[in-house]
Amino acid sequence: MNYKLLIQYDGSRYDGWQKQGNTDNTIQGKLEHVLSRMTDETIEIHGAGRTDAGVHALGQVANFHTKKKYSAEEILIYMNQYLPDDIAVCQVENVPERFHARLNATGKVYVYTVRNSIVPDVFARKQEYQVESPLDVEAMKKAAQYFVGRHDFKSFCSNKRYKKSTERTIYSCSIEEEGSRIRFVWHGEGFLYNMVRILTGTLIEVGLGMRTPESMSSILEGKNRELAGMTAPAQGLCLMKVEYGERV
Amino acid sequence: MNYKLLIQYDGSRYDGWQKQGNTDNTIQGKLEHVLSRMTDETIEIHGAGRTDAGVHALGQVANFHTKKKYSAEEILIYMNQYLPDDIAVCQVENVPERFHARLNATGKVYVYTVRNSIVPDVFARKQEYQVESPLDVEAMKKAAQYFVGRHDFKSFCSNKRYKKSTERTIYSCSIEEEGSRIRFVWHGEGFLYNMVRILTGTLIEVGLGMRTPESMSSILEGKNRELAGMTAPAQGLCLMKVEYGERV
Repeated sequence: MNYKLLIQYDGSRYDGWQKQGNTDNTIQGKLEHVLSRMTDETIEIHGAGRTDAGVHALGQVANFHTKKKYSAEEILIYMNQYLPDDIAVCQVENVPERFHARLNATGKVYVYTVRNSIVPDVFARKQEYQVESPLDVEAMKKAAQYFVGRHDFKSFCSNKRYKKSTERTIYSCSIEEEGSRIRFVWHGEGFLYNMVRILTGTLIEVGLGMRTPESMSSILEGKNRELAGMTAPAQGLCLMKVEYGERV
Repeated sequence: MNYKLLIQYDGSRYDGWQKQGNTDNTIQGKLEHVLSRMTDETIEIHGAGRTDAGVHALGQVANFHTKKKYSAEEILIYMNQYLPDDIAVCQVENVPERFHARLNATGKVYVYTVRNSIVPDVFARKQEYQVESPLDVEAMKKAAQYFVGRHDFKSFCSNKRYKKSTERTIYSCSIEEEGSRIRFVWHGEGFLYNMVRILTGTLIEVGLGMRTPESMSSILEGKNRELAGMTAPAQGLCLMKVEYGERV
């Protein structure tokens, strides 16, 4: 049997999604531990997005195989009972054997949240990045448009030894304001290591007047991480949605 | 000078609002500590609502007197710089000397949030109370109407040795549903110790079918804490607003 899970987590306490050797302070590790206990098998789980330490998810998708048969509700109830209270399973679905959460994903939506105020929001403080100086939202919107489409994002990738193609397609980047909260909504086919955080960090530098919107094209052309801006802190980032199926 | 503060806090880590002898793990204690440091005086702060341990606030109001003169912005910036990150000052106002945040308050709005689902919300988990069994919202709405108006709420007060009048006026109690979240919005002139949590806990028992809406009148009439329901957990409660000025 192959089960697909829709997962939420507050990443604050964890070393990210991906299991790391013997240490087990990862989301993947926590999920596998509960599933292995339930099934009495050694379960391996495949997540669609390997979120970094401190990054959150409202719509992570993962799948796992087991020889046993359960109803979706049995899995949902068991997992939420034994998972720590900052990880929750929202939906469970029995899917065809060949489904793979990461390899079959065709799109992802990440949201980066900035609080642009001298006053913090005490309830959202671990899910947003506070920027005290006023940001020029119009300039950031203009700059964001340079990233839409298919580009080589080598300048926006932290992994220098990345051997594969650094070309990716960004379908859209919209910037939404709601009170003193600014949300950067990134929709793309997939993102390189730290790419959303570096893109957002660079846009924030545009918003602060440190860079012009027009300078984005030379960063892309330069294919050099040092040309781009800061890596925005992990806590502001959230994986909102993973898409499957062909784009029309 | 007399300054009025609008304050937010995540009460999870604290022993409530009110300072308790030598221990200083209270919201009042944290605020007074920062203000005393700023003014180099011993500052005493008066809060409108003495919230319990674990209770939150989005709209707590407090005031303090000082011999020194500051601009509202100076106080706002200084306090947010030195307060722990789960307490924030949202507004500061210079007010007439006679203004007292608690004695002058004419109304308060408290919101109690229940998540009625088997799936927790990992981001709001410290600001809501999860009830897994389905609640009958219509029955709770019917029961809530028994509390509106002026009543003796002795059955809904934890403090048995309370010598003063236990009569209070509740202006309204509305119950709002949004997805699997249910919000109990209590608007009254003031509330007794634990009153909002006992009222909400009793309504939850109605929602679970353990009590009828009609049985609310006999609880009020009995003037006995043992007749009412459970005290709903602190984490679901939030002081939203404090009102000043006469009601028309």
